[in-house]
Formats: sequence, structure tokens, C-alpha cells
Amino acid sequence: MQFISYPSVSVWPELIIRPVASSADIRQRVIPILDQVRQEGDVALIRFTEQFDKVSLSQLQVSEVEIQEAEQLLSEELKSAIQAARNNITTFHQAQLQQPEPIETMPGVTCWRKSVAIDKVGLYIPGGTAPLFSTVLMLGVPAQIAGCKEVVLCTPANKEGKVHPAILYTAHLVGIHKIFKVGGAQAIGAMAYGTQSVPKVYKIFGPGNQYVTAAKQIVSQEGISIDMPAGPSEVAVYADDTANPAFVAADLLSQAEHGVDSHVFLVSVSEKLLQEAQKQVEEQVKQLPRMAMAAQTLQHSKAILVKDEAEAIELLNQYAAEHLILATDRAENLAPLVTNAGSVFMGHYTPEAAGDYASGTNHTLPTNGYARAYSGVSVDSFVKKITFQQITASGIQQVGPIVEQMAEAEELMAHKNAVSIRLASLS
Amino acid sequence: MQFISYPSVSVWPELIIRPVASSADIRQRVIPILDQVRQEGDVALIRFTEQFDKVSLSQLQVSEVEIQEAEQLLSEELKSAIQAARNNITTFHQAQLQQPEPIETMPGVTCWRKSVAIDKVGLYIPGGTAPLFSTVLMLGVPAQIAGCKEVVLCTPANKEGKVHPAILYTAHLVGIHKIFKVGGAQAIGAMAYGTQSVPKVYKIFGPGNQYVTAAKQIVSQEGISIDMPAGPSEVAVYADDTANPAFVAADLLSQAEHGVDSHVFLVSVSEKLLQEAQKQVEEQVKQLPRMAMAAQTLQHSKAILVKDEAEAIELLNQYAAEHLILATDRAENLAPLVTNAGSVFMGHYTPEAAGDYASGTNHTLPTNGYARAYSGVSVDSFVKKITFQQITASGIQQVGPIVEQMAEAEELMAHKNAVSIRLASLS
Repeated sequence: MQFISYPSVSVWPELIIRPVASSADIRQRVIPILDQVRQEGDVALIRFTEQFDKVSLSQLQVSEVEIQEAEQLLSEELKSAIQAARNNITTFHQAQLQQPEPIETMPGVTCWRKSVAIDKVGLYIPGGTAPLFSTVLMLGVPAQIAGCKEVVLCTPANKEGKVHPAILYTAHLVGIHKIFKVGGAQAIGAMAYGTQSVPKVYKIFGPGNQYVTAAKQIVSQEGISIDMPAGPSEVAVYADDTANPAFVAADLLSQAEHGVDSHVFLVSVSEKLLQEAQKQVEEQVKQLPRMAMAAQTLQHSKAILVKDEAEAIELLNQYAAEHLILATDRAENLAPLVTNAGSVFMGHYTPEAAGDYASGTNHTLPTNGYARAYSGVSVDSFVKKITFQQITASGIQQVGPIVEQMAEAEELMAHKNAVSIRLASLS
Repeated sequence: MQFISYPSVSVWPELIIRPVASSADIRQRVIPILDQVRQEGDVALIRFTEQFDKVSLSQLQVSEVEIQEAEQLLSEELKSAIQAARNNITTFHQAQLQQPEPIETMPGVTCWRKSVAIDKVGLYIPGGTAPLFSTVLMLGVPAQIAGCKEVVLCTPANKEGKVHPAILYTAHLVGIHKIFKVGGAQAIGAMAYGTQSVPKVYKIFGPGNQYVTAAKQIVSQEGISIDMPAGPSEVAVYADDTANPAFVAADLLSQAEHGVDSHVFLVSVSEKLLQEAQKQVEEQVKQLPRMAMAAQTLQHSKAILVKDEAEAIELLNQYAAEHLILATDRAENLAPLVTNAGSVFMGHYTPEAAGDYASGTNHTLPTNGYARAYSGVSVDSFVKKITFQQITASGIQQVGPIVEQMAEAEELMAHKNAVSIRLASLS
């Protein structure tokens, strides 16, 4: 880690910059993939799957048999864990459902807002070495609670043409039946435009590599909604002398193992804590299977000594972390001061890993400083909120003259007339 | 209007297409404007204002004196109307504020979600012939309720270098003090990058012409959040024999006067109603100052006869209108069936114009079918929802083993270790 002592405010903007990969080149490679999926449908999907995933598929959709087999292939312990996590995530997200509450803004003028599920949504689950079934929970549970009618899941198959059973089991558990063996930018194209096999959806969710991210960005300009702009994962930790350096080090490493572009940002008022945490990092990293990757990530990570708690929180609010851990006895005092973060982990027994899997909060969160203006995924992400208004004859007599005044001042006489003609009919 | 009788479902996709302007050319013209604003700041803003708005400004920010003068220039009637609309909009939006509600997902595992204002937001208000002070209310009121610390407003000055007093008065009423005389793509650039005068913001709201829309789309790819993708305004009306044809015609015309790219979509089960509404449109349009524009808009608008109510609602859900008027005695029966719309106007005395100005709902709504996946502007648009979690020592003993199982199955051993190290300390 890079140690930085008492940085002046003028260098903060530099400290909070995330490592970014250039994307113009990636975009140029993704555009023809999307075009071919739009024009050729399944044929293009099968061709790209051969080219990129090195597997030849005769059928893109995962069969009922494959889904049933998946259940047999997992240990009972893992299935119980997934179910328990599902329950916690359901409990937390269920409370986000809102009932419409009519409000009479004037006598006879009643307005309300109703959450209505987005009919068709698409979830992307990356492939790679580890099967991210936890993300199936994080996207599938709120989609189910929202009541989305059609939920499509795309994920790449392995070289044997199979999807990891934990992904299939989890998808089945949250009511997802339309699962397709398609990955990368071509999967995003399939869900954005629709193919013979893959239904077109209105909104696409999920993490992915740079190609997936670029594809999501491109289709979002074409009218498809996306969950949020994505970047590499990151954690910021605030720790003081009450923190356990071994816990802090374990949290930093759990972020660092995600990939070399992950960002780790440790802020403290205690030089002693920073040194002890660093020592613990060096010891613990040796035990990790992903040691090389974690070590490389830590090279561009920062440990920053600041003069007091207030300055720490100010710096952390400017950083706007995806995950913010408050490793201090004073977590309850500091939490109200946090204005920019995706998800906050309070106290010594709340590792980020708990929220990644099973505390109940969502792990699809804004990275790269987007937490300044974006929220993480929630049930809100799977609904639209439609407003309704109902005005009675006596209500239009109340609100009508206001509308007439304003419409006339905006020189929109037909707007005025839509009210005047009604008022005239009542006089 | 184009009359279409009993169209088969196969032609629906064609019916619901909106007139779209090509945007690649516009994008190419906007990019250099944004680049110059980023590089030169105020100098570029002043240059573009001379070039496009034909006015030479020495100071971009509206002065306190100008704001105070504005109040003197408006009639008492208009000021009262604006205040009454502000009160209704405030009443409706205030109810959208949510208090965090802690949820114990497991014993010792407590999670909650807290709405926190986006620190810095920018509002764009178009210029042109009519001063859109109603949009100042629709964006300024929720920003104020959310508690945004810095609210910046950009709007072009007229040829005398002045902003319309109704805009200044309304902005002042909703607590906006940083008002800049900048319009077009350059205003979006100013708020996205910041200049010597105009503060940089995290999210940009507001309608505008194609240049403004393209600029918002471009900066949204650079990390600035925007309210929603924008398109020309539109209304869909469902009317049956219980509807008043004169009211229906007035509502269609109030949309048509917005501009020639506006879209008007009338659906009915009654041929008689369609004919009478058409007759009324022809009569009423003659009275309008914007007659030529409204007439042109109506040429590409559609009046569609369908076989029953169910088909009407299905077609309207596919259309996904920005504004949907249910001009029928059966509005309360039909409203629950609406799945895609921005805002719904129920019954015979609820013209769209009421929601445009003063019923209390927001008038910044998704156009062009975006209502399938997007909501209109609300207090939600001005906040992030940050999740928090706090786990006790006994809580981690509950949730910890679940996390360990799942992390191991995802091959993320440092994630597992962040829990194991804590569990070990407690055993």
C-alpha cells in the first residue's frame, strides 16, 4: 500500500482517482458484435460463443433437465446457505415495496404514485473461474418482489457447454426459468434487441467485464434502461485505534482479491493502526490462493493518515466509495455524517463480505465515485413509479384558475383552453 | 389526424413508433462545444452565447438586483398562481420523503436504507418564446425537499441579456440563488465540468432542444448523472362514449401546440366519439394562436378505433405514453390495468394541463416509450439511497457461517477469511 501522511486538501482530487481502463478501443470492438446480434439473432450468438467461449452450442436455452440436475450437484450445506441468504435479502428488499398513498393536494384534487413492475428485465451473470450465484440472488430477489413478468438470465457456459450448478440452482430458487448460455457483449445485445431464443427486455442488470460494460452503455443510448454505469469494485475503510488491525487487513484483502483493478482506500487518524494493519496485510496475503492478484492490487492502494475524524469523513465523502467500512467504536456517531457511499458497514463485526452475500442489503452498488449521484440496486430498480391524478368537477374549479394563469403566462393557450372549456361547462 | 380502424396486433409496433430526429449529426456538433467549455470555461460560455443567443454578456450570473426586480414585474395574480402550484407540488412531493426503517434480517443483523440528498444538482430551463417557469417548480421543489446543498440553474438570456422575470421569481421562491444566463449544449457542459462562474454538479435535470439532449447524453457517459433520456412530449387519450368530445379535443390540442414533433395518440372503442372529437379539433384549432403548429402536429397524429376496452388498454400499455388520459366514467376500473405510462389523468375533469402546472404531480416524465422502464422525476431523483448494516458479535455468529459457505463456493477465500477471522476471535 502507498502511505500518505496528512495530505493537503489540494491533493485530494488526485488521491480519489480510480484506476480507469481506456474504453474507446473496447467500444469499437463491441459495436460490430451488437450489430451482428441485431441482424442475425441466434446465428450470431452461436458464432460468437464459439469464437470467444470456445464452445459449440446447439441450443442456447438451459433445459429443465439441466436445472433439475443442478440441485443434485450441490452440497446440502451450500443449498442451506443460499436459502438463508435468500431469506435475508428477501426480508430487507420486501420492505422497499411501497403502497400507493393518495394525497389530496387541494379539495377535489387527488394524486398518488404507484410502483408497477417493469414487465421484462434481463440479468447478466458473468462467467469466469468463480460462479457468481450471489449476484443471481441480488438481482433475482428484487425482480421477484417487484413482480417482473419476464426475467431473462444470460450467463456464459463453460467449455463443456454447461452453466455452473450453483447459478442454475439459485436462479430456480428465485423463480427464473429463462436462462441462456450466452456471455459477453453478445448477451447484452441479445437481451437489448431480442433474438429467436432470447426475449427482448426493457432493462438490463448485472456486472461484467469491460466488453459487457461497454455494450450496456451503448444499448442504454438506444432506449434500453440499465442498472447503473459500472466500474471495478472498491472498498474504503475508516479505522481508528479501537479497530482490530487483523480485521481491517482481512477486509482490505477481501476487496483486493477481486482483481488488479480493484481499489482499496484506508483512512485513519492513527499512524499505529495503519502500520499494524499493513503488517497484518503482509501476513494474511501469504495465505491466499489469489495472493499474486491481491498483492498487485495492493500496490496501487492507499493508506492515508489524516489529522482528525472530521477530515477523514470529508475525504471519504469526496471519495464516495462503493463499500465504506467504519471500523471504530464510534460507527454510530459517524454514520449520520456519511453523504456519499453505496453501502456502509458499521463496527467491528460487520465485514463487507457479510453484505456481499447475506446480511440482506444489495451488493450491486455504484463504483468509481458514482455513489455521489447513484443508488445501489433495490426493488426500486425493477419498478417504474407511475403518478395518477383524479380531479372532481369541484376540484377543477379549485385548481383550474391557477392552471389558466400559468398557462397564459407561458403562452400555451391550448393548455389554458383545456381547463377553460371544462370550467365553462360547469358554470 | 390519421384514422385507423381495428388495426391487427401485427401492425401495432408500427403504430406506436414516435417521430424521431436523427441525432448523429447533432452529436458531432455538440462534442466540440462541450470540449471548448471544458477547456476554456467562462470564455467559451460567453463566446457561444454571443454566437447562438446573439447577446454579449459581461457577467453570467444573474444578480441579486435582477432577482428582486423580477418580483415587481409580475402581476399579483400570476404570483399567487405560482405560489398555489408550488404548495400543491410541495404537498405531493413531501410525501415521497422516506425515513430509514431498520430491519433485523437475522438476530444481530440490522440493515436500513437512508435517503441522502445529492449534494450538487443542476437544472436546465430552456429559453425560447415562452418562459417555462413551471419546470422551475417541477425541478426546484423536489430538489429543495430532498435537501440538495447546491442547486444551480442555467437558462439562456434574451437578446437584451435578461432572463424572464417569471423564471427568476419562481427560482427565488424555491430557494435557488445561483442562476446563470447560459443556454444550449454549453450550459450542460458548464454544469458537467464546472467553469469559473458555474459550479460543477453531480446530476443534471431538465428539458431542452436536441442539442441540450445530445449534450446531456454525452456527459452522462462521462460520469454525470442525468434525469432521464428525453424526447418530444406526447399524450395518449383513451375515450369512450361517456367522454365529452370537446374536452378530448382540447386535451389533444394542448399537446399538439407544444411543437411539430409532439405526438398525439387517441384510442377509442367508439367510432362516434372519434368523429365528434375530430370535428371539435377542427373547430377549436382555429381559435389558437399556435394554430399552424398544432395543425401540422395533428397531421401525423393517430385516432385509432379498437374492438374493446381490453384491447385499448393493451395497445396503450405497448405505447407507454408520457401522459395518459382516461376520458371515461370507467377511469377507476381502467387505472389499475395501466402498466406503462408516465402520468395518468383520470376522468372527465382531469386535463393533462392540470398535471403540467398545478395538481401536484411532476411534469418531467419519460417520453418515447421510456415509460416502460423509467419513472418521472420525483424526490427520489434528487437523493441517493445509501444502505447501512450493523452486525453485532452474536450477529456475525449467525450470518457468518452462511457467508463462509457461499464465499468458498465462489472461490473468494479472502471474503471467507474476513468472516472466519472474526468468528475465531469470538470462540
